[in-house]
Amino acid sequence: METMTPTSSHSPIHSIAVAAHPGLPEALAECPRICAYLEEHGLRVIGSSLYDEKLRSRVQAGEFDVLLALGGDGTMLRAAHLCAPLGIPVMGINLGHFGFLMQVQREDWTSAVDRMLLGEYWLENRMMLHVDHYRGDALLKSWDNVLNEVVVSRGEMVRPVRFSASVDGYLLTTYVADALIAATATGSTAYALAAGGPIMPPELRNILIVPVAPHLSMDRAIILSEGVTVSINVYTNYQAVVSVDGQAPLPMLNGDRVQVSCSGHTVRFIRFQDPGYFYRNLTAHMEQNPTRDLKS
Amino acid sequence: METMTPTSSHSPIHSIAVAAHPGLPEALAECPRICAYLEEHGLRVIGSSLYDEKLRSRVQAGEFDVLLALGGDGTMLRAAHLCAPLGIPVMGINLGHFGFLMQVQREDWTSAVDRMLLGEYWLENRMMLHVDHYRGDALLKSWDNVLNEVVVSRGEMVRPVRFSASVDGYLLTTYVADALIAATATGSTAYALAAGGPIMPPELRNILIVPVAPHLSMDRAIILSEGVTVSINVYTNYQAVVSVDGQAPLPMLNGDRVQVSCSGHTVRFIRFQDPGYFYRNLTAHMEQNPTRDLKS
Amino acid sequence: METMTPTSSHSPIHSIAVAAHPGLPEALAECPRICAYLEEHGLRVIGSSLYDEKLRSRVQAGEFDVLLALGGDGTMLRAAHLCAPLGIPVMGINLGHFGFLMQVQREDWTSAVDRMLLGEYWLENRMMLHVDHYRGDALLKSWDNVLNEVVVSRGEMVRPVRFSASVDGYLLTTYVADALIAATATGSTAYALAAGGPIMPPELRNILIVPVAPHLSMDRAIILSEGVTVSINVYTNYQAVVSVDGQAPLPMLNGDRVQVSCSGHTVRFIRFQDPGYFYRNLTAHMEQNPTRDLKS
Amino acid sequence: METMTPTSSHSPIHSIAVAAHPGLPEALAECPRICAYLEEHGLRVIGSSLYDEKLRSRVQAGEFDVLLALGGDGTMLRAAHLCAPLGIPVMGINLGHFGFLMQVQREDWTSAVDRMLLGEYWLENRMMLHVDHYRGDALLKSWDNVLNEVVVSRGEMVRPVRFSASVDGYLLTTYVADALIAATATGSTAYALAAGGPIMPPELRNILIVPVAPHLSMDRAIILSEGVTVSINVYTNYQAVVSVDGQAPLPMLNGDRVQVSCSGHTVRFIRFQDPGYFYRNLTAHMEQNPTRDLKS
Repeated sequence: METMTPTSSHSPIHSIAVAAHPGLPEALAECPRICAYLEEHGLRVIGSSLYDEKLRSRVQAGEFDVLLALGGDGTMLRAAHLCAPLGIPVMGINLGHFGFLMQVQREDWTSAVDRMLLGEYWLENRMMLHVDHYRGDALLKSWDNVLNEVVVSRGEMVRPVRFSASVDGYLLTTYVADALIAATATGSTAYALAAGGPIMPPELRNILIVPVAPHLSMDRAIILSEGVTVSINVYTNYQAVVSVDGQAPLPMLNGDRVQVSCSGHTVRFIRFQDPGYFYRNLTAHMEQNPTRDLKS
Repeated sequence: METMTPTSSHSPIHSIAVAAHPGLPEALAECPRICAYLEEHGLRVIGSSLYDEKLRSRVQAGEFDVLLALGGDGTMLRAAHLCAPLGIPVMGINLGHFGFLMQVQREDWTSAVDRMLLGEYWLENRMMLHVDHYRGDALLKSWDNVLNEVVVSRGEMVRPVRFSASVDGYLLTTYVADALIAATATGSTAYALAAGGPIMPPELRNILIVPVAPHLSMDRAIILSEGVTVSINVYTNYQAVVSVDGQAPLPMLNGDRVQVSCSGHTVRFIRFQDPGYFYRNLTAHMEQNPTRDLKS
Repeated sequence: METMTPTSSHSPIHSIAVAAHPGLPEALAECPRICAYLEEHGLRVIGSSLYDEKLRSRVQAGEFDVLLALGGDGTMLRAAHLCAPLGIPVMGINLGHFGFLMQVQREDWTSAVDRMLLGEYWLENRMMLHVDHYRGDALLKSWDNVLNEVVVSRGEMVRPVRFSASVDGYLLTTYVADALIAATATGSTAYALAAGGPIMPPELRNILIVPVAPHLSMDRAIILSEGVTVSINVYTNYQAVVSVDGQAPLPMLNGDRVQVSCSGHTVRFIRFQDPGYFYRNLTAHMEQNPTRDLKS
Repeated sequence: METMTPTSSHSPIHSIAVAAHPGLPEALAECPRICAYLEEHGLRVIGSSLYDEKLRSRVQAGEFDVLLALGGDGTMLRAAHLCAPLGIPVMGINLGHFGFLMQVQREDWTSAVDRMLLGEYWLENRMMLHVDHYRGDALLKSWDNVLNEVVVSRGEMVRPVRFSASVDGYLLTTYVADALIAATATGSTAYALAAGGPIMPPELRNILIVPVAPHLSMDRAIILSEGVTVSINVYTNYQAVVSVDGQAPLPMLNGDRVQVSCSGHTVRFIRFQDPGYFYRNLTAHMEQNPTRDLKS
């Protein structure tokens, strides 16, 4: 399976975009050093802010073989949004806090770049979601590269909202809750985790439904198969919102609907570690200090 | 203990305010019937919307011995806010959905009123919270009659907020979460329940701290004793909000603080059932249909 | 997909075993009536207790096209163990409590049998687990038709046990807990649900790992893909046990290992309802009576 | 309040029992050193295993002013059982894993002993439970010094048990679950925590009820006030057990009852740190490594 098996039969890399999170001084400082290193190795390079329009349009024009993202997990999300439609692999160098998505620690970037240029990596494909926001029959907005989750939520008013969720036209259940999350495996370690959801390793291609603060409603996460379409209707006397991958929320009115399915796009992450890295990260993040078994 | 023991040594009731939730047609329809019945029994009566200024100012002037609230749990919350500072007992007649606070079902109101007039009831005293909102040293707002909870929450932006909570000056812990709830026993069956908190019978005088969707933070509710002062500081790049008993939220800025302690006021509910009513309500709300023990 | 689509292209049914749970008087009473009805329709029939050796050996000899199970969810589990290795479809008639597995209510059995004989049904295939119990290199016992779950648990001593779990040789994490459950989608509504796990519709072919009462350990369920092998090692000063589908537990010693993977067998349930039946059952079992949204 | 305020007005200490956990080599090694140090300071001392009958009977005869317990949290439990009926303060020196109960780290024992002899400490009083096990009207066994919890549990058979719980004669609810825990504030960080219960600082005098793996039953912890009596009835086709503070379980039959109330005894722990120590320990045990707030 391509997802899990390291291989060195990758196409050669001739050009790399290096995209730094503009809010992280460390990322901006490291960016020119990495560009210089790559140019010394004969690659065609652009280095800039991830939000720089010129960088984005050149990436979208297919000018680069790989994108290096410098920042944290949020940077990886935005790099994935940019690169997934083009199939360009993304490699993340961690200059923020320790996260679930980044592959390479700051101090290891030279060796990681060297391995990448030698083709000593594997590509981890991660499923994304397609999301449509409807008001009646009108499609208000679509997103096609959702890597973590779509959240349908109460707005600022601290009152729960009523949701009904259906799967392929069959009613799943109704919730009275703060929010309802539809997440990917990647998103299972993000907001869905905080809401009490289970953990899914990155290669899983399921859709995860998790309510936030459900009030005397179904309070369990539900795992659905890749092929389904989930519809979420919102009923509220106040404003609700929809937000995708933590981006600025859009207003939802009473009766609005969000429809979620598997995206045709896949983000491809460059990985060097063995596939057990995910569980090791997990344990590093979640482990506590057990004492109950003390018998002494 | 006054809280739990029925007694008939109450002061005689001469005057009653009947306050209906203005948004419930059933409440508005029942209001004049109840007033007429009370007047026939020789009582001085006012009947109006709970939000009617004249009713409110006459209640606040101490003109009435009891307030009858017609509506649902939300109506009881607002009746409690009005009556607690004055020590006036509240009796709720349920014209909304089945809730945790209402004492009397719609069809039973005549017999309940008769029993009340005979003094055949007991008074259930419920602790309330005092809440102060500070920006630096400036006290922006105080609430003195919080019956359910104060919530410090993310605003509309679907990103978690960082909170630090301390108890009597000692750091309790820090949270990365959607919200942090400080609730009373009464509030333990409201938002705190949805957030995963424990249940506290109404006579308990503890403060309950529950995070909503905590992300790799302390994820357990904490029970504190009545005498403590809890301080909650908010750290966020976006707007946060504070909301009390489900009321319209007020903005909190990065660094703002909410301070919570036991209020000097207590709401007094008129009760007819034995004190086991709370657990029966609880089971009626929460019971599901167990199957795992099937051995057949 | 065969799993989800009703079809009438089934092979004709000539012979049926009717197997009743021997501990349910209703099941034993209904059994001869169903047999008589089937014989009137020209079928070859055996009717007996599900534990009757003659019935079991004739089923295992392939003498019957279908097995009708009369009882509750536990009866379905045992019918599945018997029929899965042979690929014989199972139809359950509910004579116990309402459960997640039974397809047909008692009062509907004639119409269900009629539809079955007309081929108006679909076959729902449910993944099973293969489980091996090792002590050092010695394989002590294997199970090949686990429909709900395998549980590795503390014994009678009320002290937690230490588990380490690995996936395809990569360490997943260690737990200090009462038990560790490895469940199928079918099992996700059984013990795994009680332990806080997510819900998986029956067609999912994932392995679900859920700890019971984890103490300061990873406390989230983990969803794994069908192809993995999970190893669970037990470390304890007291006796631990392993139990499969609720059957009598076998002792595990310190250092023993249980290995779990997808079984080559699949149980086939005869279904008449549309595939949304699973969610309707779920809501019937789990729904409570929400009140927090009351604004009145 | 004596519980929370350090004071030096304690009675002078003339005699100390030093009791080591016999299974911990470090505890046995440190014991004679501590005894020698105390004798040099003119105290009357006995040093031995905590399970040594001579030590226990001399402690029970009131020969000592203080007991020093060398070991871990389990050692503190057993020291509390011994000392609570006599009102003798207990000081714990940690020679096991980091726990919630121990006050003094191994390397700090000399300074702690010095401060104790100078009276520079405060006494933390912790509520205990009284537990009676009834079969019909027959009282089979009582425990009067339960510091953590009483657990009524399934036995080795991995099937849930049905419990009904009542409070002062009023039915609380029924559970289908692995176990039901009745815990003190001290026990809220032990098994009850693993089962999902809330955290109570040590000075709280409430009784905490938490089910373990509840199946479609009430799944929330319930906090009760100090004065109540809780009755737990067990209904099962298999053996159930009752266990107190992690001790060897005793069998319970179908219909057996356990009755729980506040004990007349209180354990007194010698404390040197400010009262915020509990929250600092809590955070040290439970803190994880949050990442979700990353915006970069």
